[in-house]
Amino acid sequence: MKLGDGVEQAIHCVAILAALPKDGLLPAAALAEFHGVSTSYLLKHLQTLSRAELVQSVPGPTGGYRLARAPEDITLLDIVLAVEGPEPAFRCKEIRQRGPNPLPGYMFKAPCQINRVMLRAEKAYREELRQVTIADLAAQVRTDDTEGLIEARGCAFFDAAMRHYAP
Amino acid sequence: MKLGDGVEQAIHCVAILAALPKDGLLPAAALAEFHGVSTSYLLKHLQTLSRAELVQSVPGPTGGYRLARAPEDITLLDIVLAVEGPEPAFRCKEIRQRGPNPLPGYMFKAPCQINRVMLRAEKAYREELRQVTIADLAAQVRTDDTEGLIEARGCAFFDAAMRHYAP
Repeated sequence: MKLGDGVEQAIHCVAILAALPKDGLLPAAALAEFHGVSTSYLLKHLQTLSRAELVQSVPGPTGGYRLARAPEDITLLDIVLAVEGPEPAFRCKEIRQRGPNPLPGYMFKAPCQINRVMLRAEKAYREELRQVTIADLAAQVRTDDTEGLIEARGCAFFDAAMRHYAP
Repeated sequence: MKLGDGVEQAIHCVAILAALPKDGLLPAAALAEFHGVSTSYLLKHLQTLSRAELVQSVPGPTGGYRLARAPEDITLLDIVLAVEGPEPAFRCKEIRQRGPNPLPGYMFKAPCQINRVMLRAEKAYREELRQVTIADLAAQVRTDDTEGLIEARGCAFFDAAMRHYAP
């Protein structure tokens, strides 16, 4: 079981967009440079986040990305499901119904016990991610940033790369 | 995020091996036929389970597989980690350390908040799977098998395919 690298990149991007001033926009190339990742790969994930209505894509030569919702309203689960898709990691193929001498069909009305346990575990996983918002992450980073170095780096980045949203 | 089909197959195989009489063995081909899956693919997973010391592989023309431990001592987590590997699904690439104007190295002593939350979710996932043993699954199946049809199918399978372990 492996999550794609896009998850880490998407969460970091949403977190940095959450720190933008209200009228700020960041182009994909700047977000990619700031995170040291490929622009084309990141662009794919930014588009996914945009389709999931977590970020807003403002088109045009002075366009860029901004959050589509308040940081309090974006959970880590929202981002993980947007990037990885909503399907559970365990996808029961109902192999209990295969093979010789199959049981009668009514025996399979209830889900397979194995599927049930696997989905219960996945529910616990998602529940943890649902409890943490981007605002929570930002608050924790502010607490940890005792010398203001993270904030200063962010400000320098915004000074160099930020555009202004003029709807 | 997707688990391989091997997880479902491995759990079903361990569950059926748990129902064998004490001296019983089942060859890989029989396990594959019973579950309607490819023998070569299943063999790969049976070998993985054997390396993880969850099942014992008895070689030779009258050989086969049996459990290496009591069903009470095999959790679903044991099987999932054996098949999928022990690494977490989220593999932090530390992209926070990339890009221009990097922060000083001592800022990265504590793990990234994002990694921390992702691993906490994975811990909750694993904890659920750790709480369910193959003996628990078997007990649940016995409870659900009100007409004895699952047991009868298993007995017919053992009659046709089971070998005897003679160490």
